[in-house]
Amino acid sequence: MKEIKIGILGFGTVGAGVVEAILNNGELMAQRSGIFPKIGKIADLDIKTDRGVKVEASLLTTDALAVIDDPAIDVIVELIGGVKIAKDFVLRALRNGKPVVTANKALLAEAGRELFEASVQSGAGLYFEASVGGGIPVLRALRDGLVGNRIKSMYGILNGTCNYILTRMEREGLDFDGVLADAQKLGYAETPPDLDIDGIDTAHKAVVLASLAYGAPVSMDAFTIEGIRGLSHREIEYAAELGYRIKLLAVIREVNGEIEMRVEPSLVPKGHLLASVHDSFNAVFVEGDVVGSTLYYGRGAGRLPTASAVIGDIMEAAAGKGGCSEWLLKHEALPVRGANDISIRCYLRLALKDQPDAIAQVAHVLGKNKISIGAVMQKEQNAGEQVPVVFLTHKALEKNLAAAMEEIERLDVVSGKPVRMAIEDFGG
Amino acid sequence: MKEIKIGILGFGTVGAGVVEAILNNGELMAQRSGIFPKIGKIADLDIKTDRGVKVEASLLTTDALAVIDDPAIDVIVELIGGVKIAKDFVLRALRNGKPVVTANKALLAEAGRELFEASVQSGAGLYFEASVGGGIPVLRALRDGLVGNRIKSMYGILNGTCNYILTRMEREGLDFDGVLADAQKLGYAETPPDLDIDGIDTAHKAVVLASLAYGAPVSMDAFTIEGIRGLSHREIEYAAELGYRIKLLAVIREVNGEIEMRVEPSLVPKGHLLASVHDSFNAVFVEGDVVGSTLYYGRGAGRLPTASAVIGDIMEAAAGKGGCSEWLLKHEALPVRGANDISIRCYLRLALKDQPDAIAQVAHVLGKNKISIGAVMQKEQNAGEQVPVVFLTHKALEKNLAAAMEEIERLDVVSGKPVRMAIEDFGG
Repeated sequence: MKEIKIGILGFGTVGAGVVEAILNNGELMAQRSGIFPKIGKIADLDIKTDRGVKVEASLLTTDALAVIDDPAIDVIVELIGGVKIAKDFVLRALRNGKPVVTANKALLAEAGRELFEASVQSGAGLYFEASVGGGIPVLRALRDGLVGNRIKSMYGILNGTCNYILTRMEREGLDFDGVLADAQKLGYAETPPDLDIDGIDTAHKAVVLASLAYGAPVSMDAFTIEGIRGLSHREIEYAAELGYRIKLLAVIREVNGEIEMRVEPSLVPKGHLLASVHDSFNAVFVEGDVVGSTLYYGRGAGRLPTASAVIGDIMEAAAGKGGCSEWLLKHEALPVRGANDISIRCYLRLALKDQPDAIAQVAHVLGKNKISIGAVMQKEQNAGEQVPVVFLTHKALEKNLAAAMEEIERLDVVSGKPVRMAIEDFGG
Repeated sequence: MKEIKIGILGFGTVGAGVVEAILNNGELMAQRSGIFPKIGKIADLDIKTDRGVKVEASLLTTDALAVIDDPAIDVIVELIGGVKIAKDFVLRALRNGKPVVTANKALLAEAGRELFEASVQSGAGLYFEASVGGGIPVLRALRDGLVGNRIKSMYGILNGTCNYILTRMEREGLDFDGVLADAQKLGYAETPPDLDIDGIDTAHKAVVLASLAYGAPVSMDAFTIEGIRGLSHREIEYAAELGYRIKLLAVIREVNGEIEMRVEPSLVPKGHLLASVHDSFNAVFVEGDVVGSTLYYGRGAGRLPTASAVIGDIMEAAAGKGGCSEWLLKHEALPVRGANDISIRCYLRLALKDQPDAIAQVAHVLGKNKISIGAVMQKEQNAGEQVPVVFLTHKALEKNLAAAMEEIERLDVVSGKPVRMAIEDFGG
């Protein structure tokens, strides 16, 4: 039986998960694929801490290059994270002709093209299923199962931390800050939490998804990225009354030959499957022109779920299936539409002074900017106080929405900062 | 650029869908994979009818063997359906060394082993993603993405016709027969509808899923198969009041080294994602020991969705990736637990005479057969009439449930035939 020797860079949570799963299921994997996976070497700066898995001391090293350059190692698993050092290691491994498996979405989003080129040049595959949606085999679905499809759109709940926070805010009626602090205590959110809650992590993953569907090396600057920081529980309540749940959504879609992309908290109709994705789960809703609507759901992070995806990639590399670097470089690349020219429906929540023409003034500004109003909801009216009013707009161009928001903020009848979110109806 | 010549057997709905998708997206597929898919030949007894796609007349033949034996054809797509002739054709193609793509779950469920053996012998791959879940790439997920997992359980909504009927029964408050007739008129159900509504189609697909997860060539006689024929709208209402939706579910799970398998209408908690799978959509909920819970959702049938899966397989065959016949033959095969020894929770609906000890008599029979009652719901009580009473049991052995049902049916206080369904809580 063929054996494959795995070299792991980074013996953290996921690294230990990979080792554990291979120790438990290596035999089964060998039966299935005819290839026996073995841990060859593990590099980490800290080789003292007990990771809760049994590893012979002789396999551990503090020298990553001793793994990358070892001719006995067949495949490199990069689990260091971050961009700079990880990139050097991955490039070196690829140039050594070793296939590389990585879960590093930041690296792919920021230096993907360079890596894919090195991979094509040396013929060593680059595999990154674990970089999007944790254990969910969604990249494979795009590459293999849906290969005959033009992807019309993808809608992803891609960050478990944000989804966990939003779920608890809704279930328990809590505000953002309290839940975040609790999530950090429970290990569901990192400290600092910025990459997750500001939408950066979701955006990294969106870039990877877009590259597979559209061959496009989308830059992180090319689209709107907004997170859920400071979201008020009130928004969740109002959205619920209007039939929606708030999710941090990556929206990627092809419209007339251009890619529309954005990451922001969005109102999802309660009847849509994505609205039923709770807690730290992730899901990607993919529409293809042949297959129609599909959805992929599972844990988007965590020691074992991520290990599951890493192992799938290891076995693919071991079987000599080539990854998709070539695909990514040769695929027709669609241009990205500028944020200003994207049409979206909006939820606007304003605090209005309790005076007779307040709503009319806002409606006037919207109309002037070619924004039609779909619905208005005015909440509890206590004389003399500020009145929360929610407007749902029809589709309008981002540039018009932005101009209107600016004007609305300056209106005398408006207090404080208006809240604006996208409404996603999953239509065309 | 490498070209692949496709030979299609059966130019029906799906065959035409495959041709259409390849005409539309062949170029894109070539960019992605480096392989250009071309229709080489199409065999069908009827080569006159217009299928709504443009095909040169010279490609059409009424002689399947002229396709199967043509050395210029690289891959055979079997879309004839049925078991006997399809099997002869598939075996002949495999023995000719040609990879075969099929959507034929009946063939796989009833003659799978023979086909896999022929495939391994000749080295020609057998591909069948389209046989389960239509366009959903769930078999690939099991084989590739989740290769590092022991599959703990799979729960599938695998028949679009049944799910469509159940959805309309619930939404519109209609009874089974009316919706079935309407579904037949609209093309959502076949005539005769037996394979679908009696659970056979779902069972065929369950056999394919089990073979991938457990290497087990499960015989169709080895497990309980019940469909939704004659289901009363009343059951849907009662289930709803108790917090459940009724779905025709294939349940496949490993319990202590044995496979538990069954196909029957089951109560699914409303909060579970599977309860939100509506209309003719399919979904498979898969739990792996490494990845945890995952779900795959999409259209389970239809011209284009099925074509999407067929095309994914064609491109895999073209790339020389070997399919999974070896996997299926070499995988450790778990034994199937006898239906009598499976533990399930039950929904029982009885029509009881309105007499004081009626419920007590039923409860006594249940208790005698070691079945604990979890809940009792008695509906509207009009003196002198039969009273519908619903019992929800705790987990009990099938043999005890069957014995109890027999006794309960003979009780004087029970009128008519009791209704019994499984309750699925997705626990251990």
